[in-house]
Amino acid sequence: MNVLSYDLNKIAEKLNISLKDLNKAFKKRILRENEYKDVKTLIFKKDFRGIEKGTVIFLNKNLDVVRGYPKTYRAITLYPTIKKHFVDKVVVEEKLNGYNIRIVKIEGEVYALTRGGHICPFTTKKVKKFLDLSILDEFNNYMLCGEMIGKNNPYTPYYYEEVERGYENLGFYIFDIKERDSNRSLPINERIALCKKYNLPYVKPLAILDKDTAHLHIKEIINDLNRRKREGVVMKDPEMIVPPIKYTTHYTQCEDLRSAFTFFFDLGVDFLFSRVVREGFMSYEFKDSEEDLKKRAEDLGEAILVPMVETIRKISNGERVSEDFELIFDSEDDVDEFIYFMRKMKMLIVIKDIKKIDTNEGVKIKVLIGKIYNKTNDKVISYLNGTLWE
Amino acid sequence: MNVLSYDLNKIAEKLNISLKDLNKAFKKRILRENEYKDVKTLIFKKDFRGIEKGTVIFLNKNLDVVRGYPKTYRAITLYPTIKKHFVDKVVVEEKLNGYNIRIVKIEGEVYALTRGGHICPFTTKKVKKFLDLSILDEFNNYMLCGEMIGKNNPYTPYYYEEVERGYENLGFYIFDIKERDSNRSLPINERIALCKKYNLPYVKPLAILDKDTAHLHIKEIINDLNRRKREGVVMKDPEMIVPPIKYTTHYTQCEDLRSAFTFFFDLGVDFLFSRVVREGFMSYEFKDSEEDLKKRAEDLGEAILVPMVETIRKISNGERVSEDFELIFDSEDDVDEFIYFMRKMKMLIVIKDIKKIDTNEGVKIKVLIGKIYNKTNDKVISYLNGTLWE
Repeated sequence: MNVLSYDLNKIAEKLNISLKDLNKAFKKRILRENEYKDVKTLIFKKDFRGIEKGTVIFLNKNLDVVRGYPKTYRAITLYPTIKKHFVDKVVVEEKLNGYNIRIVKIEGEVYALTRGGHICPFTTKKVKKFLDLSILDEFNNYMLCGEMIGKNNPYTPYYYEEVERGYENLGFYIFDIKERDSNRSLPINERIALCKKYNLPYVKPLAILDKDTAHLHIKEIINDLNRRKREGVVMKDPEMIVPPIKYTTHYTQCEDLRSAFTFFFDLGVDFLFSRVVREGFMSYEFKDSEEDLKKRAEDLGEAILVPMVETIRKISNGERVSEDFELIFDSEDDVDEFIYFMRKMKMLIVIKDIKKIDTNEGVKIKVLIGKIYNKTNDKVISYLNGTLWE
Repeated sequence: MNVLSYDLNKIAEKLNISLKDLNKAFKKRILRENEYKDVKTLIFKKDFRGIEKGTVIFLNKNLDVVRGYPKTYRAITLYPTIKKHFVDKVVVEEKLNGYNIRIVKIEGEVYALTRGGHICPFTTKKVKKFLDLSILDEFNNYMLCGEMIGKNNPYTPYYYEEVERGYENLGFYIFDIKERDSNRSLPINERIALCKKYNLPYVKPLAILDKDTAHLHIKEIINDLNRRKREGVVMKDPEMIVPPIKYTTHYTQCEDLRSAFTFFFDLGVDFLFSRVVREGFMSYEFKDSEEDLKKRAEDLGEAILVPMVETIRKISNGERVSEDFELIFDSEDDVDEFIYFMRKMKMLIVIKDIKKIDTNEGVKIKVLIGKIYNKTNDKVISYLNGTLWE
C-alpha cells in the first residue's frame, strides 16, 4: 500500500497523545495504515492510552479523527450494580442484536464505519439510501452511532419484523450521537430531539427510572423481552455523563450459544464460559424455583449440544458447514466491491447463489453468501477419522 | 534450599539428552530442584526433549531416575480410532477415578510419587501400609503405576465401594508396571502374573477384543459403566507396544462439570469446552434418538448450572465455598507433615475439624480439610456487589 506521508506531530496533537506514544503504537502494530478505494486511514486495532479501539484518522489535509465506539460493560447483577453505577435517573433502551456502526461525513463524503474502524461499502450504501443525512452537514463533527439490524446483513443476520422492507429485512437505529473527535455523547433528550428534527430512526427509551428501584422494573422488562425473543437492554445516564451498561435476556444467552456451537471449534470456547456465568447469576437474581432452574438448565444444555451434534452429523454425511446470509445489492459492481472487502477482512466466503430479483424499486441482485469456518470442518473430520485428543 | 552439588554430565547421560539441553531445561525452569525431608530431587515440570513431565532424578550417588507417567491420549470417537490405533488385539481395563501414583524403592526407601513428581507423604505411608512391596527388592528398577482411589483422599475424593475399609475408604490398584529409568511397560500378562505372585491389587481386564470390532463391545461396556456411575475405560495393546488410550462415560463428563462448576471461576473455563465436545461426539457415535439427545442436554445443562447457582446462593448468604475431604492419619506428626506438604504445593487449605477415632487398628486421627478456591469466592462477592463484567 502506498500511503501518503503525513504529519505525525499533528496527528499526535489531534489525538492528545505524545509523539513518542504515537510511534510506539505504530511499532506495536496497534496503529495501522488502511485503504478503501482512494481513502487512506490509520486505524487503532486496540485500546491505547485512552484512545478507543476502532478509532480512525482520515489521512486528508484535516486529519479528521473518528473515535472508536467505547466498549459497553455488562451488569452481571441488576442489583446493586445499577444503583452503584448511576447518578440519579436511568434511561432504559432496548439493545438490538445487529452490528454497531458510526456514520460520519468527511470532506463531503458519507462513510459507515464498522466497530473495528473499517469503511464498510455495503453499509455505507445502505445508510445513504435509508437515511437523509443532512444533519452531518450542519453538525460535521457529529457521528451517528447506531445498530444495523435485520436478516439481510453480513455480520449479525437476525430477523427483526420492524425492518421488513418487502424484499429486504434491514434497518438502522441511532442509539447515540457523539462528537467524533472527542467521543462526547449528546444528552439523550438532545439526541432524540435532533433525530426527530432530521427525521432519523432512533432507539426509543422503554423507561426512565430512579436508580434505587430501577432493578425491579428492569427485571420485568427483561422478562417481557425474553418472552418476545429480544436481546436485552442498555441502561444510560440521561446526560450521558457515566458510561452505559448492558444486560441481556436468557433467550439471548442461549441464542448466542446456539450460533457459536454450530461452528464450535471456531467459536465455542470464547462464547461458552461467559454465557453460562451470566445464566448462573440471572438464575440467582431472578430467584429461580427448582422448576425454573431445571428449565433454564435444559435450555442451556440444548443450546450447546443440539447445534454441535447437528454439525457433527452433517459433516459425517459429507457436508461442509457454513454460516449463510442473503444480501441485496443494487448492481454487480456493488457485489464485487463487497466480496473484495470481505476477503480483505480475512473472511473466508463462498458465493452460493446469485440471482436478479424484481422489486418495487427496480431490479436488484440477491446474493447468498456462505461464511466458512474451516477449523470446525477440519477438526470434526479429523476426529471422525480417528485423531486422538491430546 | 541448599542442594548438594551434582554431576550434570552424568545426569544428562542418564536421561539420554545433551548437557546443553539439560542446562536449557534448568534455565527455562522446566527442571527444578526439590526437597522432601532430606531427600533432594530434580523434577521436570513439563515434557522436554522426550522426557516426560513429572520425571524425577534422585540426587543420590546413583542419580536414580524415575520417568514421569506419560499422558494418556483420548479417543473422541471409538470407531475408527481404536481400529487405527491398535495393532491387533485390544485389552480393555476400567479407568478408575482417583490419582495417578508411581511407587518406587530408592536406596532402600519406598516413595509414592504424584503425577507431578512430588513425594507425597500421605500416599507414601498408605501404600507402605496397604501393600507388601517386596517386589521392588527383587526388581528395583520397576515402578508400580496405579490409581489411588476412594473418598478419603486429598486429590480426587470419590467414593468406591470396593475400597471400603470400615473407618477409611481408600485403596490402590496397579494398572501398569514400568522400568522406571526407561518408561518401558511390561506386557499386560507379565504385569498381571507379577501382581498375582506378589499378591498386589491390580486392575483386571474387562475384555480382550479384536481391534476391528472392539468399538461395538466397548460401546456396551461404556453403557454399562455409565449406568453404574463409573469413569470409563483405558484401552491397551497386550504387549504395551503402542500407547494406551482412554474413553469416558457420559456420567463422568457431567460429574467433572459438576465438580468444576462448584468452583466455577477457578475451574470452570478449563473443564467446560472439552467436556461438552466429548458429549457432542458421543451423542453422534452412540446414535442418540431425539429423546436421548434431549436427556443428554438436560444432564449437561444441569451439571453446569446447578452447582454454579448453589455456589452463588451460598456466597450471597455469607458462606465461603471450599472443597472438603476427610483424611485418616496414624499420628499428629503425620497430620502436620501432610499439611506442611500441601501448603508447599501451594494449596490453600484450612483444617475444619480434627478428632481422634477408635478403630479396629487402634486410635486414628480424622481430619476434615477444606481446600479454598479464592478466585470463585472473591469474584462472586465482587459481582454480587455490583462489579461490571468487562
